Amino acid sequence: MRLLFDQFMKKCEDGSWIHLPSYEYIATQRSQDFPTFIHAYFPTASELINKEKLSQGRLFTRSFEDGLGFEYVMFYNDAEKRIVCVFQGGPHLQGMPGFFHGGAIATMIDATVGMNAIVSGGIVMTANLNINFKRPIPLCSIVLINSQLDKIEGRKLLVSCNVQSVDEKILYTEATSLFVKLNPEKEFDIKELVLKSAPPA
Amino acid sequence: MRLLFDQFMKKCEDGSWIHLPSYEYIATQRSQDFPTFIHAYFPTASELINKEKLSQGRLFTRSFEDGLGFEYVMFYNDAEKRIVCVFQGGPHLQGMPGFFHGGAIATMIDATVGMNAIVSGGIVMTANLNINFKRPIPLCSIVLINSQLDKIEGRKLLVSCNVQSVDEKILYTEATSLFVKLNPEKEFDIKELVLKSAPPA
Repeated sequence: MRLLFDQFMKKCEDGSWIHLPSYEYIATQRSQDFPTFIHAYFPTASELINKEKLSQGRLFTRSFEDGLGFEYVMFYNDAEKRIVCVFQGGPHLQGMPGFFHGGAIATMIDATVGMNAIVSGGIVMTANLNINFKRPIPLCSIVLINSQLDKIEGRKLLVSCNVQSVDEKILYTEATSLFVKLNPEKEFDIKELVLKSAPPA
Repeated sequence: MRLLFDQFMKKCEDGSWIHLPSYEYIATQRSQDFPTFIHAYFPTASELINKEKLSQGRLFTRSFEDGLGFEYVMFYNDAEKRIVCVFQGGPHLQGMPGFFHGGAIATMIDATVGMNAIVSGGIVMTANLNINFKRPIPLCSIVLINSQLDKIEGRKLLVSCNVQSVDEKILYTEATSLFVKLNPEKEFDIKELVLKSAPPA
């Protein structure tokens, strides 16, 4: 994983690829915007938020102890509108004995295509996720999630992705997704966010 | 949640509904079968299993501390081939601030439709999951996941489901899924498993 990380960091040197800050960082930076956008589109849901519980809220993909859950890093290529996520899941993501849970794979797919939609469209919500699981992924293996923005149609963003082995010889999963912008007039400035973000570990 | 549990336990009294044992229980009971079936269909994946890591494996939906992650109970109606899952997610399943992560919802959907496929077809693997997220689900709210076996075609099982508020007034999510049997000749005896399972807490 370290080797892959270094390879991608090397690609970042000429500026074609960007090492993305975590979604948690972005969410913290924009936390004042979320309630407004959500309330505009989903007033009922917004009113149902339990403020007491909210303070205990923790990002799902960052709620495991080191090495047990979701370990990942994302790199973004702005010219090609694509993200590569290097993902190594821990032993607590098990479904069938010895393999990742379909939900854990769906989670990392959602996180990756979601980030691709965020950097292209700002604050978005997953509207559809259509996943074809072709082969089970052995627990704790390292995989690459390759995500690609296919189209923007008004408030809709279409993003596809696949999950492959590091040598790209095994295609594990393919998916398409649809996101809806919650802030149609406002774009995220990805560069500004990256510049403000902490340096890579 | 306790009230809903009691209501469903009441429905179980006449035998039309069954309180399902956990997937973990089923997996443990059938752990000797999994490697054989997986190896028959996916020999490469099977060989990639890291045996050392496998011993640390924990079911994804049961890998959180009480109250922080996935809290759920499932009830099965054999005559109608459907499962109702009462689900209350904890604060560590957050996506957008104040709402569940799409991946956490996908996980509970996979677990529920997957269980419906297991009780109908034995050892199965998720082949497709197609999820329409209609409204964001407020963090920590209790929802009902209603799953229905629609069709069995040879080794394929089609299961659909929706996620609703407890009063069934809010439709949060809809999904269809396709499962493939890994043991075409062998059926699970759900009643035998339930009888062997621990009494409900």
